[in-house]
Amino acid sequence: MDRASAEALDCDDPLRHLRDRFELPDGVIYLDGNSLGPLPRGVEERVGRLVAQEWRDDLITSWNTHGWYDLPATVGAKLEPLLGAAPGTVTVGDSTSVALFKLLVAAARSRPGRGVVVTEPGNFPTDSYVVDGVARLLGLTVRWWSAPDTPDIHAVLDDDVAVVSLCHVDYRLGRMHDGATVTAAAHTAGAVMLWDLCHSAGAVDVDLAGWDADLAVGCGYKYLNGGPGAPAFVYVAPRLLDVVDQPITGWFGHAEPFALERSYRPAADVRRMLSGTTPVVGAAVLDAALDAFDGVSMVEVRRKSLAMSDLFLSLAAERLAAYGVVPEVPREHAARGSQVCLRLPGAYGFVQALIGRRVIGDFREPDLARFGFAPLYLRFTDVYDAVEHMEAVLARREHERPENVVRAAVT
Amino acid sequence: MDRASAEALDCDDPLRHLRDRFELPDGVIYLDGNSLGPLPRGVEERVGRLVAQEWRDDLITSWNTHGWYDLPATVGAKLEPLLGAAPGTVTVGDSTSVALFKLLVAAARSRPGRGVVVTEPGNFPTDSYVVDGVARLLGLTVRWWSAPDTPDIHAVLDDDVAVVSLCHVDYRLGRMHDGATVTAAAHTAGAVMLWDLCHSAGAVDVDLAGWDADLAVGCGYKYLNGGPGAPAFVYVAPRLLDVVDQPITGWFGHAEPFALERSYRPAADVRRMLSGTTPVVGAAVLDAALDAFDGVSMVEVRRKSLAMSDLFLSLAAERLAAYGVVPEVPREHAARGSQVCLRLPGAYGFVQALIGRRVIGDFREPDLARFGFAPLYLRFTDVYDAVEHMEAVLARREHERPENVVRAAVT
Repeated sequence: MDRASAEALDCDDPLRHLRDRFELPDGVIYLDGNSLGPLPRGVEERVGRLVAQEWRDDLITSWNTHGWYDLPATVGAKLEPLLGAAPGTVTVGDSTSVALFKLLVAAARSRPGRGVVVTEPGNFPTDSYVVDGVARLLGLTVRWWSAPDTPDIHAVLDDDVAVVSLCHVDYRLGRMHDGATVTAAAHTAGAVMLWDLCHSAGAVDVDLAGWDADLAVGCGYKYLNGGPGAPAFVYVAPRLLDVVDQPITGWFGHAEPFALERSYRPAADVRRMLSGTTPVVGAAVLDAALDAFDGVSMVEVRRKSLAMSDLFLSLAAERLAAYGVVPEVPREHAARGSQVCLRLPGAYGFVQALIGRRVIGDFREPDLARFGFAPLYLRFTDVYDAVEHMEAVLARREHERPENVVRAAVT
Repeated sequence: MDRASAEALDCDDPLRHLRDRFELPDGVIYLDGNSLGPLPRGVEERVGRLVAQEWRDDLITSWNTHGWYDLPATVGAKLEPLLGAAPGTVTVGDSTSVALFKLLVAAARSRPGRGVVVTEPGNFPTDSYVVDGVARLLGLTVRWWSAPDTPDIHAVLDDDVAVVSLCHVDYRLGRMHDGATVTAAAHTAGAVMLWDLCHSAGAVDVDLAGWDADLAVGCGYKYLNGGPGAPAFVYVAPRLLDVVDQPITGWFGHAEPFALERSYRPAADVRRMLSGTTPVVGAAVLDAALDAFDGVSMVEVRRKSLAMSDLFLSLAAERLAAYGVVPEVPREHAARGSQVCLRLPGAYGFVQALIGRRVIGDFREPDLARFGFAPLYLRFTDVYDAVEHMEAVLARREHERPENVVRAAVT
C-alpha cells in the first residue's frame, strides 16, 4: 500500500468536496473530531451576526424576529435526518449529562413497579455517574451488562428492568452495538430503550426509527461539530411525545412559556423535554455548524468511515505491528464505530509525539492511543500520512523522549 | 421637574462613564435590561477570538491553553463581589431552571424527615413549576407564602419545612424581600434558605454572606448582560461546599473529570454543583460581559437604581397619573428592586406604542407595563425622556390604535 493508493481513494471519494465546509488549521491531521469537532465554515459569520446585529440592535425582540425561540426545533429538524428520526422528535437544550438525567427519570417513571436500570461498565463515565445518581434518587438498582463478556443481552433482562441505557458506540474502544437487536431485546423484556449516541451521531448511519428506539441523547460537539460545550440533543419516539414525563419542569417545556401560567402544563410535543431558557448562542453555533451536513447521505458517511478505518487498520498491521502496536477495535464492520484505538506501551508519549508532529489524537488510560475518523473533512491521504508519522515516532523512539512522557499537571 | 434637573443628575452620576462599556442601539431607551441585558463592549471581540482562534486553531487543546476548563471558576470569581459572596462559592453552567432543580433537591436532601417546601405565588412561573416538579419527585408538600397577604414569614414556618425558596425581587411588581430577615427566619425554623436572584443580581447590592444564605441561583442574561440564554449561576455557602449533594452527578462535578474514574466522587469545592461539559461559548460571552462590572461598587449601583426609580415615580405622579396610570411598586426603598410596573387600562397597547417610539419595556398580564432600570447604562435623562414619551402616547391615545392593540400570534 503506497500513498498513490490513498490518493486514488480520495479521487473516488463522493464526499471529498465536504472538506471545504470546514476551517481546518494548516498542516494539522485532526483525528480527534470524536472529542471536539473542528470549526465549520459559516459559524463565525453566524455568531457575529447573532451578537452584533440580533442581540445588539434588536435586543429582546429577537426571540421572535430572529427565530431564537424556534432554535431548538430548527436544530432538531437538521438533526433528525442524521439520526433516522421522524420530524418533530428531536430537540436541543441542556448538556448531555442533564439530558440523560431527564430521560432516565422519564423512562423509569413510565415503568412503575420495575426497579432495575441496565447499563454497561464501558460507558463514558458521565453516563455511569448519572445512572448511579438516578438510581439513588429513585431507589432503583443498577445491573451492569458487559457485552464483551456476555454478548447476548437477554441474559440480563427480565421483568424487573425498567430501562436499558447504553452507549451506541464505546467511547474508548469504538465497539458498536446493533441498535435494532438490542432495542428489540429491551422491548421483549418490557423495558424502555435509551441510547446515548455521543460517539455515533454524525459519523454512523444511526436509525432511531428503524430500531424502534424509545429515547436517545447525544452530544453536539463531537462529530456534529457544534463547538465546545454545544447543547446536547434529545430524541423521543413519536408514540411517546405526549406522554414522556421528565422531572425538570421549567418554563421552556411548558405548552405556552410566555403565557406565564401559574401551573405547569407540558407541551404536547418534543418541547416538553426542555427546561430552562434556550442557550441561544450555543444553539445558534450548532445550528450553523449543522449546515456542513446539508444534502449529505449518512449511508455515504458510514461507507467512508469504514473505508478509512479499514485503511488505517491495514496500514497499522503493515507498518506498526512490529513495534508492538495492537489495534483494539472489532474487525467486523457491524460492530465498529468511527474510531480506532491502538494499544501500545508508552501510549501517552506516542500521542504527545504525534501532537508535536501536528497529528492530533488522544490518550486513554492506561495504554490506549485513540484516533477518530470523521468522514466529512478527513482524506484517505490524511490516514496514510498519519500512519507514516506514527511509524516515524516509533522508529525514532520519540514517544520515549522525556518531553513527551512527562504529563502536565492538569490534563 | 424639568429636563435640566435630569441632566444635572447625570452630571453628578459617579457611574456615568459605565455607559461607554455597552453597545446600545442608537435612539433606543432600553428599559428591558431586566429581561435581556444589552451587548457589552468586548463581547464581540471575545467571541470572535473564541471561535476563529481558540476553537479553529487550537481545537481540543484549548480546554487547557485557553482556560475553557476554568471558565466556571473564572466567571464565578467575577460574580462573587456582585453578590456579596466569598471567593470560591459561585459557579456557572446550566439554565436557571436546571440549577434551581439541583439546589432544591440538594436542600431537601440535607433535611431528611422534613417534608415541606415554602415558596411564593408571586414567583417567576418557572420557579413554581420547578418547585412543583421537585415536590412531586421527592414526595414533598408545597406550602405557599404570600408576603403581601402575610408579611411575617414566621407564620408559615415550622419544623416540617425543609427549604424556603424565594425570588429576592418579584419579577412583575419589583417587590424585594429583606434577605437577612427572611434568611434568619428560615434558619430559626431549621430550614435551608434558597434565594433566586434573577431579578436582583447586577442591579441590587445582594449580600449573600451577610444574609448567611445557604444556596442561591440567578440568571446570567438580565442585569448581568451575559447574552440570550446565558448560563445561570449557583451559590453555595462556604460551610456547605463539601456536603451539598445535588442529584445530576455528571462528569464536570467530579473531583477529577478527566481521570474518567469508574465511580462518581464529587469535587470538594463548588464545582460539585456542575454536571455536564461547560457550555464554553455561552460561558465565554458571560465572562466578557461581566467586565462591564470591573471596579464597580454595588453600593453605588444600588444608589443609582433607587434614584432612577424615584425619579420615574415622581415624574409618573406628575405627568401620567391624570391618565389613570398607577405605579405598582413599594414606595420604601428597602422593599423595592430595580424595576417599576405601571398599571393602566390598555397596558399592552401602551407598551407597543412605546416600542414604536424606541422606548423598550414589556407587558405583563393583565394590565401591567414593566420598566427596568439598569444603572450601568441608563441615564437620568433616559428616564425623563421615557416619561415624556409615555405622556405623549397617552395624550395622543396611541395605545388605543389598532396596530398597537392587535397581538402577534407568537409572543
